[in-house]
Amino acid sequence: MNDHETGSARTLETVARACDVIETLEKRDGVGVTELAMALDLSKSSAHSYLNTLREKRLVVKRGDTYHLSLEFLYLGKSVRHRHVLFEHGKSTVDRLAERSGEYAHLMCEQHGLERNIYKVPGENAVGDDYHTAKEQKPDYLHFTSTGKAVLAHLLETRVRSIVDSYGLVRKTEHTITDLDALLAELESIRERGYAVNDEEEIKGIRAVGAPIRSANGEVLGAISVSGPTSRLNDEYYHDELPRMVMESANVTEASINMSTASETL
Amino acid sequence: MNDHETGSARTLETVARACDVIETLEKRDGVGVTELAMALDLSKSSAHSYLNTLREKRLVVKRGDTYHLSLEFLYLGKSVRHRHVLFEHGKSTVDRLAERSGEYAHLMCEQHGLERNIYKVPGENAVGDDYHTAKEQKPDYLHFTSTGKAVLAHLLETRVRSIVDSYGLVRKTEHTITDLDALLAELESIRERGYAVNDEEEIKGIRAVGAPIRSANGEVLGAISVSGPTSRLNDEYYHDELPRMVMESANVTEASINMSTASETL
Amino acid sequence: MNDHETGSARTLETVARACDVIETLEKRDGVGVTELAMALDLSKSSAHSYLNTLREKRLVVKRGDTYHLSLEFLYLGKSVRHRHVLFEHGKSTVDRLAERSGEYAHLMCEQHGLERNIYKVPGENAVGDDYHTAKEQKPDYLHFTSTGKAVLAHLLETRVRSIVDSYGLVRKTEHTITDLDALLAELESIRERGYAVNDEEEIKGIRAVGAPIRSANGEVLGAISVSGPTSRLNDEYYHDELPRMVMESANVTEASINMSTASETL
Amino acid sequence: MNDHETGSARTLETVARACDVIETLEKRDGVGVTELAMALDLSKSSAHSYLNTLREKRLVVKRGDTYHLSLEFLYLGKSVRHRHVLFEHGKSTVDRLAERSGEYAHLMCEQHGLERNIYKVPGENAVGDDYHTAKEQKPDYLHFTSTGKAVLAHLLETRVRSIVDSYGLVRKTEHTITDLDALLAELESIRERGYAVNDEEEIKGIRAVGAPIRSANGEVLGAISVSGPTSRLNDEYYHDELPRMVMESANVTEASINMSTASETL
Repeated sequence: MNDHETGSARTLETVARACDVIETLEKRDGVGVTELAMALDLSKSSAHSYLNTLREKRLVVKRGDTYHLSLEFLYLGKSVRHRHVLFEHGKSTVDRLAERSGEYAHLMCEQHGLERNIYKVPGENAVGDDYHTAKEQKPDYLHFTSTGKAVLAHLLETRVRSIVDSYGLVRKTEHTITDLDALLAELESIRERGYAVNDEEEIKGIRAVGAPIRSANGEVLGAISVSGPTSRLNDEYYHDELPRMVMESANVTEASINMSTASETL
Repeated sequence: MNDHETGSARTLETVARACDVIETLEKRDGVGVTELAMALDLSKSSAHSYLNTLREKRLVVKRGDTYHLSLEFLYLGKSVRHRHVLFEHGKSTVDRLAERSGEYAHLMCEQHGLERNIYKVPGENAVGDDYHTAKEQKPDYLHFTSTGKAVLAHLLETRVRSIVDSYGLVRKTEHTITDLDALLAELESIRERGYAVNDEEEIKGIRAVGAPIRSANGEVLGAISVSGPTSRLNDEYYHDELPRMVMESANVTEASINMSTASETL
Repeated sequence: MNDHETGSARTLETVARACDVIETLEKRDGVGVTELAMALDLSKSSAHSYLNTLREKRLVVKRGDTYHLSLEFLYLGKSVRHRHVLFEHGKSTVDRLAERSGEYAHLMCEQHGLERNIYKVPGENAVGDDYHTAKEQKPDYLHFTSTGKAVLAHLLETRVRSIVDSYGLVRKTEHTITDLDALLAELESIRERGYAVNDEEEIKGIRAVGAPIRSANGEVLGAISVSGPTSRLNDEYYHDELPRMVMESANVTEASINMSTASETL
Repeated sequence: MNDHETGSARTLETVARACDVIETLEKRDGVGVTELAMALDLSKSSAHSYLNTLREKRLVVKRGDTYHLSLEFLYLGKSVRHRHVLFEHGKSTVDRLAERSGEYAHLMCEQHGLERNIYKVPGENAVGDDYHTAKEQKPDYLHFTSTGKAVLAHLLETRVRSIVDSYGLVRKTEHTITDLDALLAELESIRERGYAVNDEEEIKGIRAVGAPIRSANGEVLGAISVSGPTSRLNDEYYHDELPRMVMESANVTEASINMSTASETL
């Protein structure tokens, strides 16, 4: 077996390869044995063995000659979400925030230095359904979203620097912050204000306001936000009313989490 | 490497073990290294290697001393669902069925001989939110649900027998069909009627009506159903009106799939 | 100039080629000069001349390096439709038919032996929006739609035979009529009944009922129809009520046309 | 073949003539061979050849002794529209704008220096149905409509001057801007305000408010507007509320386009 040490723990090459198979099946929406073998530089018989094992374990299904991820992933994903503290305590608040603002409301957390969407709800006038549905299916960078910046603002600076080292500061629009010092200064002002904005930094014409959700001991758990067209998120509403609404929602979620922790130790 | 042959294809023991790790993490909602080692009869260092590799591949996160499945599974699951032909063509029909009936509406398919929930929507008076949410996270048997029986009715009898061989006919209530011949007779009458019922066969006090969704060449793709309390699903409504509504929904979904295939070849 | 005689009239090769350019631009959604030259077996400079001339005449626009049909076609198309006698006298009837039936209502005519959609309106429960939108952009065969068969039933048999000679009787489902004698017998019974049905002959799960619209001297001008899922278009409704509704709509349209002709000669 | 050079590319006289035939058929709503020959200064046999070729290619139909454009143009036109980025991303916004304002809402773009209507929807109180339906069938000048001026305001001044050179500044009412310097000053103030008005410049008694739709890199793609009677479009509503509503609609359309571009590169 071809393994190598990572820190103190070894990595299992065969397991890593199996994860690559899963990733390839998702990216290509189903592959044949030959295509998979070529994509991952495996022998055909080896590719077949990976697929066969994942199929026996019900993570993969075969349709005709192609292999696809099974609906087991939907079960696993829903299970992960239902147990997530932010979903448990934040879902109803996000529902209400979408209703109050009429725009898209989002709940997310950081995992592996990337933004992970946990839950999203379109309000009555929400724009970008297709976009947000597409985003839901892949992680995104943290430095150009209001939620991502709200989270970054409450991580240790060494962690922020390490995330930027890993992923860089990809430019999405002319307003994206692509300089580390500028980002660190922005994070400082987010901490002072209590909320973050995405001022057309991801998409031209779209703004967002996000606030961090923190545990009782100050650790950042994720963030909540509202996004919408710049023509509606402007003036007083953008600079005052909406930030207060979003921070209130973060606070309500935090309080719910803290009460649940407290009731466990009653 | 310790492999064995399955049919013509080999199974990779290490990959199978990685799948067991994923399953264990889901079942126990997070485990420590020692607990995992004991659960899967691995050495501690080996357990650590599995977890470490899955973490590097972003399928697992570590919180304190315990390991959990990551939100990557939610992304993978949503991706699988969005590409599923029944979700693409059936989602809006299920939404409408929930609205018309006021009860819980379900869309499912069979995978590996088990029922897989694809989408569910509570109508205005729907009961059993927690139950259906829990079900959504694990596959279920086919022989006691209206959707499961609607699907079984359109599989080859050899496949039905093989599924029953694998999983048995578990009894859930006094009404569950637990005899193979009785089940085969029931499937025959489902084919004749065009729909299946779950008459308190899964849960006392809950009935359901389901209809199969089939492709243009007759292959069964899944099923659609409505479930609700026996006090509301009774008499004329249960025996006539609701079955027609559910069969109409199945027909609309089938027609939408067929039209999408047809428009590709215009 | 490379021309040939057709009947008594000559065909202009250069004009025919220009029509091919238009067709290619529509089919490929924009092409570059080289791609067009290859597709039509022209020299690059010749392809460029065709595109340049059509652009000068405003039928083509250039975006970057590719050429596309211009919105002039939308103007021309709307102009053709607004002057069409069936649109002028049938539009409001089709609107009403969609409202009464709740299904998709269609108005069409035959041109060059193919079905041409003139106008379509979705009713409240209509299914197949994407399909009907796609169909709207290309002509279809006559022998498997209710409108097409209603029209064929009132053409001379020699013309029916000539259309079948040109296009064949393409099979779309197991119910499509693919035998000329069977088709002629069906047309006979359509003439007797006064309406035509499409009983899952185009799409599995979809039925339609259509009636011809004829001028005062008996010439068939087109047809009007309602299409919907088989589960709703069945029994009494499919065999009696809907045919009467569709024939009434055809009659109202015919009367409106006849009154307009009559008023011209008052 | 009688060709001439245009810039670097040649123009094909025969193709240009075919386009003239199409234009003549549209303008006169059908012509006979003799009439066409006279209109275009062709020999009768030549006119016949043009008509015959276009008929073979299904762009023309013959009714009795006259030739007409076929419904193929409706297919081609709908196809062009469905692929237009403004229709894809702006249609639902125009629908909503018509509903909110109760007036006629319009979506247009510029092609060949003229205004091209892409989509229009009458609101509940909309006036001018016949007028807007007629306009839909022919391009119009840019300098007297709110959408046209909104687009002109974001073209290069050299392009504006070239368009004015080609078409002049035709007077429609006493309020039409017919002086180039006045127009350039107006465009400057449109850029500052963010929207354009048509203050009875096209039709006495009718006002309109339009806003440009621009791509992420600032290129103007088209415009969106609301038109209605001066008695309703006045005071606060005309000067403040409606402009904000129209600019918001432009922004939502722009954001939808930008999100669709962004999701392609996620």
